[in-house]
Amino acid sequence: MNQIKRVVIVGGTHGNELIGIYLVKKFEEMPKLIQRESFESYTLIANPKAYEIGKRYVDTDLNRCFQRQDLENPKLSSYEAQRAKAIYRTFGTGGSLAADFVIDLHSTTSNMRLTIILPSKHSFNLRLAAYLSSVNPNVKVLYSEPKTSDRPYLDSICEFGCTIEVGAVAQGVLNATLFQQTKELVHIILDYVEAYNEGTPPQVKDTFTIYQTIQTIDYPRNEVGEIQAMIHPQLQFRDYEALHPGELIFLTFDGQEIAYEGDSTVFPVFINEAAYYEKGVAMCITQQLQEVLSL
Amino acid sequence: MNQIKRVVIVGGTHGNELIGIYLVKKFEEMPKLIQRESFESYTLIANPKAYEIGKRYVDTDLNRCFQRQDLENPKLSSYEAQRAKAIYRTFGTGGSLAADFVIDLHSTTSNMRLTIILPSKHSFNLRLAAYLSSVNPNVKVLYSEPKTSDRPYLDSICEFGCTIEVGAVAQGVLNATLFQQTKELVHIILDYVEAYNEGTPPQVKDTFTIYQTIQTIDYPRNEVGEIQAMIHPQLQFRDYEALHPGELIFLTFDGQEIAYEGDSTVFPVFINEAAYYEKGVAMCITQQLQEVLSL
Repeated sequence: MNQIKRVVIVGGTHGNELIGIYLVKKFEEMPKLIQRESFESYTLIANPKAYEIGKRYVDTDLNRCFQRQDLENPKLSSYEAQRAKAIYRTFGTGGSLAADFVIDLHSTTSNMRLTIILPSKHSFNLRLAAYLSSVNPNVKVLYSEPKTSDRPYLDSICEFGCTIEVGAVAQGVLNATLFQQTKELVHIILDYVEAYNEGTPPQVKDTFTIYQTIQTIDYPRNEVGEIQAMIHPQLQFRDYEALHPGELIFLTFDGQEIAYEGDSTVFPVFINEAAYYEKGVAMCITQQLQEVLSL
Repeated sequence: MNQIKRVVIVGGTHGNELIGIYLVKKFEEMPKLIQRESFESYTLIANPKAYEIGKRYVDTDLNRCFQRQDLENPKLSSYEAQRAKAIYRTFGTGGSLAADFVIDLHSTTSNMRLTIILPSKHSFNLRLAAYLSSVNPNVKVLYSEPKTSDRPYLDSICEFGCTIEVGAVAQGVLNATLFQQTKELVHIILDYVEAYNEGTPPQVKDTFTIYQTIQTIDYPRNEVGEIQAMIHPQLQFRDYEALHPGELIFLTFDGQEIAYEGDSTVFPVFINEAAYYEKGVAMCITQQLQEVLSL
């Protein structure tokens, strides 16, 4: 693998996730914070119009607009489709400032601590994630096997990098503790890339824990799609904790308790994320795996 | 004072405060929950279009649209101005279903527990608040001396009632614990009104604690109005706790700590409420007072 020559740090892919937006603004005011010797650093507020109106998006979720087939489709003309095309033309493969590595900064109403979402299991990404989880126990590593190779997420604009999800924090709110932890995490990532470029990446243990998504669970809904239950108090904010068959996951508006009906212990994440109500996702179910790094 | 003949329970004055909206939906499905012998109960989703689009409001904050001078101003034609006029024509003084008592259900990203906001210091409202805070230590009573008698809040449509603020909960999210606590609080209020109508209101102690707003504090901002600091981690979620002069309230994006410069101990509330960033309010400063009930 060649060196990382250009890094892009993205905030505001969702306009109401303020930590990434204000972190990018800070980096733009004080560019030395993200400069390193061996690569160029760029910043981007991905969805400025959504930030202006204080919403996740204007027309459609920007972080689902990056499939190659959509980027190449001239008929797609929503604000976010246009933004995705412009971002890809700049930082994507063959772009005017084609990036080798992307950090996409998100926040969530779920208690996701400092989650690194792996875009792929390329050994570079795995080693970085292993390193990050070794230096900070709050770092969790999440991975979803993509359904097709054409992923719709912003972090798919280059082969290397990650999406960072920090929480729990409300939409439209800055949380100073999470802001500082995210800033620190970005610095550690940039330092790692620098060390990698210099041929001296930090050593990591050869196994580390990842959480791999196996399914999503929707809220119970009625025939017209209205939700009929809430996340059970016993599950709220318990992202990444073990959920055993028979444990309670929902409480209906009538006070009935609904248990998890799977047949094995799982680890739910993105529990009660505000933006996922409309996506039909009350939580994502993961398995906890020990990932073995190849030499 | 006459009997309370008609009560209206309002949710969704802000479209992204889901607890009140889903509670009103539940009451509409199961009207027996809010029926009592001595009065009629009505429900209202105040801002259905804002709820549809998942925002606080469409054009302007509905909960600032109820000044009489605005309700009578034919030139005001925003969606919310029209909604306020329609609501007042129905449930306001002289309306087709003029209400004597209103409960307006809100939620907040601040850690406000179960806050009763008093619309006035009428002895009926005070006695109700004293009772509620006596039955549940999570209930806090908040009062702001109005600048003019023409208050802009929805709860000003009738003389009696209150606004309920529950939190901390993110916008666009249901929290089951707070949902159930709010439901319980509404039941207790309705039972209180019933007992009052029957001439047997519960006895209360003759003093109780209220928090009276004395000022608001904005975020530090630069010359173009952009915020330059966040709520300090030591203050986050500490609504209703004592804040002493010299204690830290903000952390700038550069890591500088800013202390409270007042000269007496105060009790901040609405700390880091998402919707107040645009209103120039990082927190409201209150004094803790012992309110004495008149006989």
